[in-house]
Amino acid sequence: MPIQNLLYAVPACGALALLYAAFTTAWISRQDAGNQRMQGIAEQIFRGAMAFLAAEYKVLALFVVVIAGLLVLTADPTTSSPMIGLSFVSGALCSALAGFFGMRVATRANVRTAAAARSGLSPALSVAFRGGAVMGMCVVGLGLVGFGALFLFYLGQFDALADVDGSAQELTRVVNLLAGFSMGASSIALFARVGGGIYTKAADVGADLVGKVEAGIPEDHFLNPATIADNVGDNVGDVAGMGADLFESYIGAILGTMVLGAVAASGKLEAAILPLLIAGAGIVVSILGTFFVRTKEGGNPQVALDTGSFGAAFVMLPISWLIIDYCVKSAAANGTPMILTHGAAPITTMALMWAIVAGLVAGVAIGLVTGYYCSKGKRPVNSIVAQSKTGPATNIIAGIGVGFESTAIPIVLIAGAIYLANDFAGLYGVALAALGMLSTTGIQLAVDAYGPISDNAGGIAEMSGLPPEVRGRTDNLDAVGNTTAAIGKGFAIASAALAALSLFAAFRNVGFRPGEELMLTNPEVLIGLLIGGMLPFLFSAMAMKAVGSAAMDMITEVRRQFREIPVLRSALGLVTKAEHENRDLTAEEERQVLEAGSKTEVERCVAISTQASIRRMIAPGLLALISPVVVGLWSRFALGGLLAGTLVSGVMLAIFMSNAGGAWDNAKKQVEDQKKDNSQEGNSGKGSDRHKAAVIGDTVGDPFKDTAGPSLNILIKLMTIVAVVIAPTLLKMASGS
Amino acid sequence: MPIQNLLYAVPACGALALLYAAFTTAWISRQDAGNQRMQGIAEQIFRGAMAFLAAEYKVLALFVVVIAGLLVLTADPTTSSPMIGLSFVSGALCSALAGFFGMRVATRANVRTAAAARSGLSPALSVAFRGGAVMGMCVVGLGLVGFGALFLFYLGQFDALADVDGSAQELTRVVNLLAGFSMGASSIALFARVGGGIYTKAADVGADLVGKVEAGIPEDHFLNPATIADNVGDNVGDVAGMGADLFESYIGAILGTMVLGAVAASGKLEAAILPLLIAGAGIVVSILGTFFVRTKEGGNPQVALDTGSFGAAFVMLPISWLIIDYCVKSAAANGTPMILTHGAAPITTMALMWAIVAGLVAGVAIGLVTGYYCSKGKRPVNSIVAQSKTGPATNIIAGIGVGFESTAIPIVLIAGAIYLANDFAGLYGVALAALGMLSTTGIQLAVDAYGPISDNAGGIAEMSGLPPEVRGRTDNLDAVGNTTAAIGKGFAIASAALAALSLFAAFRNVGFRPGEELMLTNPEVLIGLLIGGMLPFLFSAMAMKAVGSAAMDMITEVRRQFREIPVLRSALGLVTKAEHENRDLTAEEERQVLEAGSKTEVERCVAISTQASIRRMIAPGLLALISPVVVGLWSRFALGGLLAGTLVSGVMLAIFMSNAGGAWDNAKKQVEDQKKDNSQEGNSGKGSDRHKAAVIGDTVGDPFKDTAGPSLNILIKLMTIVAVVIAPTLLKMASGS
Repeated sequence: MPIQNLLYAVPACGALALLYAAFTTAWISRQDAGNQRMQGIAEQIFRGAMAFLAAEYKVLALFVVVIAGLLVLTADPTTSSPMIGLSFVSGALCSALAGFFGMRVATRANVRTAAAARSGLSPALSVAFRGGAVMGMCVVGLGLVGFGALFLFYLGQFDALADVDGSAQELTRVVNLLAGFSMGASSIALFARVGGGIYTKAADVGADLVGKVEAGIPEDHFLNPATIADNVGDNVGDVAGMGADLFESYIGAILGTMVLGAVAASGKLEAAILPLLIAGAGIVVSILGTFFVRTKEGGNPQVALDTGSFGAAFVMLPISWLIIDYCVKSAAANGTPMILTHGAAPITTMALMWAIVAGLVAGVAIGLVTGYYCSKGKRPVNSIVAQSKTGPATNIIAGIGVGFESTAIPIVLIAGAIYLANDFAGLYGVALAALGMLSTTGIQLAVDAYGPISDNAGGIAEMSGLPPEVRGRTDNLDAVGNTTAAIGKGFAIASAALAALSLFAAFRNVGFRPGEELMLTNPEVLIGLLIGGMLPFLFSAMAMKAVGSAAMDMITEVRRQFREIPVLRSALGLVTKAEHENRDLTAEEERQVLEAGSKTEVERCVAISTQASIRRMIAPGLLALISPVVVGLWSRFALGGLLAGTLVSGVMLAIFMSNAGGAWDNAKKQVEDQKKDNSQEGNSGKGSDRHKAAVIGDTVGDPFKDTAGPSLNILIKLMTIVAVVIAPTLLKMASGS
Repeated sequence: MPIQNLLYAVPACGALALLYAAFTTAWISRQDAGNQRMQGIAEQIFRGAMAFLAAEYKVLALFVVVIAGLLVLTADPTTSSPMIGLSFVSGALCSALAGFFGMRVATRANVRTAAAARSGLSPALSVAFRGGAVMGMCVVGLGLVGFGALFLFYLGQFDALADVDGSAQELTRVVNLLAGFSMGASSIALFARVGGGIYTKAADVGADLVGKVEAGIPEDHFLNPATIADNVGDNVGDVAGMGADLFESYIGAILGTMVLGAVAASGKLEAAILPLLIAGAGIVVSILGTFFVRTKEGGNPQVALDTGSFGAAFVMLPISWLIIDYCVKSAAANGTPMILTHGAAPITTMALMWAIVAGLVAGVAIGLVTGYYCSKGKRPVNSIVAQSKTGPATNIIAGIGVGFESTAIPIVLIAGAIYLANDFAGLYGVALAALGMLSTTGIQLAVDAYGPISDNAGGIAEMSGLPPEVRGRTDNLDAVGNTTAAIGKGFAIASAALAALSLFAAFRNVGFRPGEELMLTNPEVLIGLLIGGMLPFLFSAMAMKAVGSAAMDMITEVRRQFREIPVLRSALGLVTKAEHENRDLTAEEERQVLEAGSKTEVERCVAISTQASIRRMIAPGLLALISPVVVGLWSRFALGGLLAGTLVSGVMLAIFMSNAGGAWDNAKKQVEDQKKDNSQEGNSGKGSDRHKAAVIGDTVGDPFKDTAGPSLNILIKLMTIVAVVIAPTLLKMASGS
């Protein structure tokens, strides 16, 4: 069987994932949605989330049309085709659909998780995890269906199979066209991450500062009008934003490997097909993995999640070996090796396997380091807790110090992975290392998305006044899966760096004539390097300022409601009084408080977050898209420097911001676990000055870890993919002048 | 007259500066040192500062001996000489001496400034400025005497003049030997900046948090046992640290130009001598400039400082033109052009002038941008003030956002300067652009060092209970000179980037064989780039953690004294009570408070800062020295990437940290200027919640702007100069293997 026939299996695997998602969605809908009050709250969250998505997609639709038009108009017919517009629109559409479906199910699963938590931990885990699994499968399913179908279509259009043994010119053109799909996915991802990140943190910071700190009511309390917006934020930021993010990573890693495969020495079709086959197999393995995520009552959900996720990654190793071996042998059977090593010998299956293993080991190790820097009871978090004793200033200094320091080991690990992957299998090996980490994205994302669903379930339990043991169960669900999530974060950082590197190599291949080199001593390269190094700072500044000012609007609005709605003001008094006296509310008080809760003007808070995030996501998004174009029009060499500079400082800032944010978060939790002691000597536990300092640190960390930090991974890749897409045009302009 | 004879003028100009410093020192000693109480306080500050310097230099002496020994042992006799050890020791020694003399005079001038401020602003300005001028002239004087004498000595040793028209092999060897001087200066500078920065901020943060925030007594109050340490810190950090820093920049810029001059196409002696002649002329102009810094009573000291400093820079322009023209013509008279342009035509005087002007314009513009980002009443500081309304968390988020954003324009300006300087006169032009900014270091540093002297004078006035109008005058002195200081900071950042670039080019020239190129697509270069990008983060983490933990020790100690010394505790009560009732202390209360002040255990606080800073400066210093060696031993290509990576993220972090710190500082001051209004709606002025939030931001900014930020400029250059020094050895090892 010719290897290209195997390609039909790729969209088929994608379709399988979508089928799984559809069945699981139906199963979730059949679950108990709880009492009327719970359903009412869930409905508010659902409507808020959908309103945001509608507003966001309206803006993005316009953007996609404009960019697609520009791509069609400027496409160079000798190395590309106006069809790149089709690729771009497809990529954007698939990403948007994955976000839409995933979030729709997440906003159904949250209340059903809360409802299931009334009867026990095990059924709640099932609902939450399956909700996450729908998101995961939608991402990989739509990814492979769209990308795979487009690949087959272009192969047919451009007769790329005819030059299997030749110059690979047509294959390169096809792969360049597919870069448009990746660019579409990256663009949507950046806007979704930034917009969602601003939304969720403006609401979160606003709700916490006025509710918890100023008014002294518990987190997620229904008297706080920003609580619904906060819960909507978990969905638009942590579910839809993360889904688009991983869609982008997944496609980027596949595309990076394909481009390098297509241009690698002999340009064999096998080298370009291999990443797609691995991704397809990854879907099947991920689906199987989801069946292992179950726990008995009293069992440990952590074990269940780890079994599914690590099990899938582990099973992928021999399967990858088989696929690689098949490709290597198929190429050899046609007379030319798949790719050549540095020594110009044919690559071996084992060398490619080692590249994948190097990537996986680095990813897992980075995850463990990330876990170390953010975990309660470890040295970094302990140091923040210790320095919180002397107030917020020393807490902040300590947290920034921890975040800065935490860049060191991950960078050394990434450097090691690059060294090994390149040593074994050249730049193709580096790309494959990134892909290896992302092949089981389906189940990894299920575990990631399960977190915010449990978080939401907890919020609903709190707001609808379910008994404390229900909240305990949802908190328990939320707390586990952290190891898996940390390792997922390690994969995200390491794979972003490696994928950006392979896309960078692709840019170098398509954007320069033979003999032209990107030398570090070329002043144009140096200028690009400096400007590129600056962009992640400017981008983060925009994101953080957006959160800061949106949160201020939110705070002002909540304060206004607390002040101007009389029943709300007196209800707040009742709650804090009872809290202070350490007793439950009386039936009459309960009635008054409930009555006041229905008077909060929730929609105003939702509207503030929605408007602020949509308006504020545009500038940083455009910065990422336009700067490579502007710099590239001046000099392709400066553009090369720009990408390298953005990669360097972007990766550092991403690691710094994620880890500082995570460490502050857990430092606060660790203080809350301490014994209460408000004396100057002790100064520990909830309500102490140390706790107040730790809460401030946590708040500063929020936009770090949930807005700016995760967007930077996308920024790096989006800028590089834009460079890959425009490179042929730039080269032609340079030749013409 | 052969041009080399002019070289004798270089150490002569240096000697002139030292003479000026000696005369000025004698003048300062003759001024009134105030009453006994003032002298007692000044003596404590003086002894604390000298104790720190003694402890620091003891550690550094050991370090210098070890490194010098290593340099002697590993020197390659074909391209270098064991005499590089002599260069290194001389550079270290000159830097240390400049710090010693400068600080000695600064700790004499502070109390005399306070004493002079009793009679008026004008005499106080004279004393403070002349104190700063001694520091400035010691730096440039010792720099040129040491560097110039060493150059003449090596020229004699190695017969470098014989190959004026030839390969310049011996001239290159001489310049390589001089790199050791620069390395010595940079090493001392890094330790002095880090050590001094830790000292001053640990004391400042500790004194402020316990004194101002917790106990509610005014800043610099003598009841606060950390106040003396805080004032010592101003001297060891802002005077000695800054002196060593500028010594390093000055020498680095001269050396960078010399190296590129020596290796530039035709390797004419003129190209290597030119920077020394410009520096020598700069000293004469600086000395003349100091005579223009004087003001009538009621006059504006800002105008006086600006006249001296801008006047000197302006006068340097025609003088530079004359010197350049002389060199260009002298080279042409010998038959070969000084250097060649890109088009291989002889360089013109005007082209080199344009390079200098490009550097100067970029430096001034960056200074103005820096001023904008840190000034009261401008948008960035206003935004921090606005966001302080909702507490410390939003204050911190806003400040970090401002700092991140402030990297954008300076980087574009630096990029523009590189583009123009390179376009006009190649990499030699880039080096010359850096030198142009630093040629009048003598008077610039005088203005910079005048700040901490006035600050100290204010502290002494406060502690010794001088009338409020005296404190008003010293505050007034302290407040002006900010424009000049901001532009000095712009010069420091821009010149660091340009000087590092020229040293980087020098490394490329001496460390690689013809045909070897530092290509961005080489995985070793990329690995170096990533690791290099990480180092400034790790380095800053070390510096900030040192400040955080030293400040904690200080806070604990001050709290202990407040608690355990009974007379101190009751005196604090009297002061805050009187403050609260808005009245002066009664005579009896005054007596009790004074009595209590003599019971504070000041020496303990001084000892805490000294020990912490000496112990904690070692690890970051070694990181900077050892990492280029370790990476270079693995791969020279990775070392090239390492330097580029450190340059990129180091410059960004330096700008971010300096500007965020400055903006927080002035945001706090702006809140203090507001009308007092403690209502939730108003929330403004001293004592309001907004003010508390702004104080926290200011405290976070302290280690940013005074410890980590300024050290990064040195880190970048130190790593590059280490690479330049070890490059010949690395190249030989690579050839040998």
